[in-house]
Amino acid sequence: MTSDLNVCLSPSLIPLYNVADHIVVIIDIFRATSSICFGIENGAAAIIPVSEVEECAAYREMGFDYLLAAERDGKVVDGFDFGNSPFSYTKEKVKGKTVVLTTTNGTHALHLSRSAKKIVIGSFLNLTALCNWLKTQDENILLVCAGWKNNFNLEDTLFAGAVVDQLKETGLKLDDAAIAANDLFQVGKNDINQYLKKTSHSERLKALGIEKDIEFCLQVDITTAIPVLDGERLVKLVG
Amino acid sequence: MTSDLNVCLSPSLIPLYNVADHIVVIIDIFRATSSICFGIENGAAAIIPVSEVEECAAYREMGFDYLLAAERDGKVVDGFDFGNSPFSYTKEKVKGKTVVLTTTNGTHALHLSRSAKKIVIGSFLNLTALCNWLKTQDENILLVCAGWKNNFNLEDTLFAGAVVDQLKETGLKLDDAAIAANDLFQVGKNDINQYLKKTSHSERLKALGIEKDIEFCLQVDITTAIPVLDGERLVKLVG
Repeated sequence: MTSDLNVCLSPSLIPLYNVADHIVVIIDIFRATSSICFGIENGAAAIIPVSEVEECAAYREMGFDYLLAAERDGKVVDGFDFGNSPFSYTKEKVKGKTVVLTTTNGTHALHLSRSAKKIVIGSFLNLTALCNWLKTQDENILLVCAGWKNNFNLEDTLFAGAVVDQLKETGLKLDDAAIAANDLFQVGKNDINQYLKKTSHSERLKALGIEKDIEFCLQVDITTAIPVLDGERLVKLVG
Repeated sequence: MTSDLNVCLSPSLIPLYNVADHIVVIIDIFRATSSICFGIENGAAAIIPVSEVEECAAYREMGFDYLLAAERDGKVVDGFDFGNSPFSYTKEKVKGKTVVLTTTNGTHALHLSRSAKKIVIGSFLNLTALCNWLKTQDENILLVCAGWKNNFNLEDTLFAGAVVDQLKETGLKLDDAAIAANDLFQVGKNDINQYLKKTSHSERLKALGIEKDIEFCLQVDITTAIPVLDGERLVKLVG
């Protein structure tokens, strides 16, 4: 039987899919899943995504030797180790460590996808490695865009389209959202940063002063690790 | 202040918008809103959209002289006057009449948009008339795609993109979904029917034997009437 390649354009739409029947890829390009890919590539033992700064803080109180990443309005919250910039997830900082990462949209998408066969993390950083692994799986695939406040956003959709682009020749059956995501990727692929500049979200990100983060997150194939959910922890997928 | 032009890609996302702050355009290209535009153009006194065949039947029991349109699996339900094919909404059949139309996706989108400043109906049939009217309104606009079973579909999104295309030079502020819809329209606009053939939905519609309906629904600017919601009835917008 032909497997499906579906794109879920926002967490609000996750309940419409039979998640238990899919491998789920969580996508939150600016910046959670990019930072997670970079951190796992750089040897972080695990990354634990949480929704709220308070949940992140709770890990400190439990006495674990975890690095705590928490941001509000683009600034590291007082008392935390760092924020969500991928530049914080270098070898020097994260190797061998467990990081607790605060990310509202990404964590929300992840929780709603709990019943999936497997949950992995995608970003432009690990695009081809992710796709090569997906090609070896004989399963339905659901690409979940974390979006923005439960709604559609362009950057996550474009990445979903990049994945569809690599997988579409394998005979998977695409739903309408997968077709749309891929067509949008074709429109934007020659200069994704430029393409995304027309979005309102881009104004918001610019206001946060994280343009360097954005450029970083749009680099293709600079990592090969695939983060996979194991309990509450994202760890490196082994073989 | 700049008004917004937002595209809501599925009824599931309607709660994310402050609908009361918008003029809403309901879009259900195959075939509800196309048939409604054609029926109102052809002099139907009113069209009442309902979700279920049973609700439609209830109107007969009330003793009104209404035409009842109800379909299941692409066939007119026994005892009803006609189905959802736009070819049923000719002058000969509907002039001066009130029609009760059964449409699950469209009615659902409409009910969730109840609190809007105004609710109008869009289709390729009345595209430019609709856009010209929208241009005269100094309000936020929300284009609501009825979609398919609460999820995204390509045909409604492409039409939303066609509206964005006509309105985008007026200085309205586009959200990410409006940008995406417009870019998809640019990809598909030279042959929308051909473009939509790659969707899985198209297979479903072909199986229903309604290819002629589809061609009909993709005709641009063959009508000028704008159906508007007045209570529970869709009537012709005056002025």
